[in-house]
Amino acid sequence: MTKINENFLKIPASYLFSDISRKITEYKEQNPNADIIKMGIGDVTMPLPTASVNAIIEATKEQLDSATFRGYGPEQGYDFLRNAIVKNDFNDKNIDLEADEIFVSDGAKSDSGNIGDIFDKENVVALSNPSYPVYIDTNAMAGRAGEVGENGLWSNIVYLNSNAENSFVPELPKTKVDIIYLCYPNNPTGTTLTKDQLKKWVDYARENNSIILFDAAYEAFITEDDVPHSIYEIEGAKQVAIEFRSFSKTAGFTGTRCGYTVVPKALTVKASDGSEVSLNKLWLRRQTTKFNGTPYIVQRGAEAVYSAEGKKEVKALINYYLENAKIIKSAIEEMGLSAYGGINSPYVWVKTPDKMGSWEFFDYLLTEKNIVCTPGVGFGLQGEGYVRFSSFAKKEAVVTAMGRLKK
Amino acid sequence: MTKINENFLKIPASYLFSDISRKITEYKEQNPNADIIKMGIGDVTMPLPTASVNAIIEATKEQLDSATFRGYGPEQGYDFLRNAIVKNDFNDKNIDLEADEIFVSDGAKSDSGNIGDIFDKENVVALSNPSYPVYIDTNAMAGRAGEVGENGLWSNIVYLNSNAENSFVPELPKTKVDIIYLCYPNNPTGTTLTKDQLKKWVDYARENNSIILFDAAYEAFITEDDVPHSIYEIEGAKQVAIEFRSFSKTAGFTGTRCGYTVVPKALTVKASDGSEVSLNKLWLRRQTTKFNGTPYIVQRGAEAVYSAEGKKEVKALINYYLENAKIIKSAIEEMGLSAYGGINSPYVWVKTPDKMGSWEFFDYLLTEKNIVCTPGVGFGLQGEGYVRFSSFAKKEAVVTAMGRLKK
Repeated sequence: MTKINENFLKIPASYLFSDISRKITEYKEQNPNADIIKMGIGDVTMPLPTASVNAIIEATKEQLDSATFRGYGPEQGYDFLRNAIVKNDFNDKNIDLEADEIFVSDGAKSDSGNIGDIFDKENVVALSNPSYPVYIDTNAMAGRAGEVGENGLWSNIVYLNSNAENSFVPELPKTKVDIIYLCYPNNPTGTTLTKDQLKKWVDYARENNSIILFDAAYEAFITEDDVPHSIYEIEGAKQVAIEFRSFSKTAGFTGTRCGYTVVPKALTVKASDGSEVSLNKLWLRRQTTKFNGTPYIVQRGAEAVYSAEGKKEVKALINYYLENAKIIKSAIEEMGLSAYGGINSPYVWVKTPDKMGSWEFFDYLLTEKNIVCTPGVGFGLQGEGYVRFSSFAKKEAVVTAMGRLKK
Repeated sequence: MTKINENFLKIPASYLFSDISRKITEYKEQNPNADIIKMGIGDVTMPLPTASVNAIIEATKEQLDSATFRGYGPEQGYDFLRNAIVKNDFNDKNIDLEADEIFVSDGAKSDSGNIGDIFDKENVVALSNPSYPVYIDTNAMAGRAGEVGENGLWSNIVYLNSNAENSFVPELPKTKVDIIYLCYPNNPTGTTLTKDQLKKWVDYARENNSIILFDAAYEAFITEDDVPHSIYEIEGAKQVAIEFRSFSKTAGFTGTRCGYTVVPKALTVKASDGSEVSLNKLWLRRQTTKFNGTPYIVQRGAEAVYSAEGKKEVKALINYYLENAKIIKSAIEEMGLSAYGGINSPYVWVKTPDKMGSWEFFDYLLTEKNIVCTPGVGFGLQGEGYVRFSSFAKKEAVVTAMGRLKK
């Protein structure tokens, strides 16, 4: 008799975005003329860079001729893209990595989920509260989270509380943990760690033989000097950290799908027989066995992000969204509310007024201002009393929305 | 201290294709003028259908304008593609499925690997010997295969021997198994099951509450009437089977990456608390959590495979490769060797002469005939004494190669 993975049954169905969408639909039915402005979901709205579009079209045309047709490519990505990544994102920024430490993929969501395949079920996992739901859900599926309590917290997970009281800088765990998820600039709070603050985590990991899974999907939004773009800016991080990167928010690839994961060759873990095992080799084995590479045409589009034209376009995109974030943040602050993030991030994390709950404030904004945000509690218990505004909307819409707020 | 998934360490490094490529390189160094014809790997060589190329270019151009730009799409695929699939591949062929039973992905390799996520570690797995290595490797990674013996066989896997002696029709397992991998038309042997033969497996699965994972990646090559294209042609299969499909071999998508998996809503498994759990819902949960959808532009390319022009082009591609297979098969038979497959499949499975080993015959063909094939033993012990010829080469090359063989 087939047995399913019953860990799936323990995961509460995720109703966050479907609840939001149901509420919008209901409101629209009652108010068909309402001009609703959506600032909830973290999806981009501006076009793909022209450089990428041209490169994809060129690469697609190559598929018409046997001489230039591409079949199976290397599962870990073509050299042209791995070389462009390692040069532009690391070597040119004084980070010493090599192309075979880069694994191109269809996005950071897949990688941050699938990375669990190479780790044992028995590791103790620490992660931020609030956080991107994929971290907790994928660990729950793998049986690493234990049991979920009535409060929504999992028995085997060490939560790193992140809130206004600790300035969104979580404390180091008091107990030993084996795998630590860090996401900076943070989703959902938009806050960052300085180099010194991140160094404490690297030092913790080195002392405790832990691994840091560092999600840097939003690094392109960093504007301040002291905020690290990569965990490998911290000395010794190559021995303890895996980093996830994405073209989604940087270059508008949310629907075109490309990201990459860095697994340094210096990163080893002692196996039970005492041997040192290379995580780079394990991940290569995982990817060559369960993945067949990112489409060639998409990899050409990602490569073009690093061309002179592509870099200019990406910079303009990032500035556009950061300008939106600035508008959101100042409008919120003008209302007398506390707003976090938005300086090195496309997200602004807002404390609700008068101790309103996340959903209560969401309802107020929807019905009174016709603005959609994301209730913070959807990212974890510590998100209660906050909402997230995304700056990935059109500037006109952002200006209109903030005008309504200020009224 | 972080603990790795030590199941990875049990898997013997796969040297099949790297050994082949090393042998070719060595031979070429010694014989720089040799005209080597490659008929080893199962990768296509003919261009992508024009209909798909045009659709991808059109869809890519849409990304230049905010009004038509596509961000995150549904993880399970866009309706336009799911509807085209369900109509053309199933409903028009009298198979009753609905669009929400189709999950679009980046290929059958990912899906046939990742599907293990929804099953418990404790299931007993049965699979063909020889077979596509992904089945065994992914189960070994998940800890479902047990320990590997000196003979290369895993302790917890039930092997379904498939060889000339049983006409490549494996017997039903004598012990109870929970998950059964079937691949027809078969990779690597190119052989098929008739409807009656496949029905026995469906009946077995129904009687024993097992699940069949049916890999139909090569169904487009079927030419004979009594060979099922889909396991859902068999009555009752919807209650026991998941089916994998791919655009790779059908429409030349090996480098463009698109496939899909069918998980019927009628397919349920009893959980330990006695409740009936829908595998469609579990897979949806897995995909929405660990996958972010196939690129929009690629899905448009796949949709075009079902246009009038696309269908014509795909038919021509399939016929081209089948014609190659026919040339290979008759040349082999003229040599007095036994050849299997090649009628409903792009693969011809050849019994080596004089009880030569797979690698010995491989070496003979490389050095004496300058032809590359794949040693059958690379697909499992029962493949020893066979080699696989792939018809995914250019016709001129196939004709030349077979001319050399006949000499």
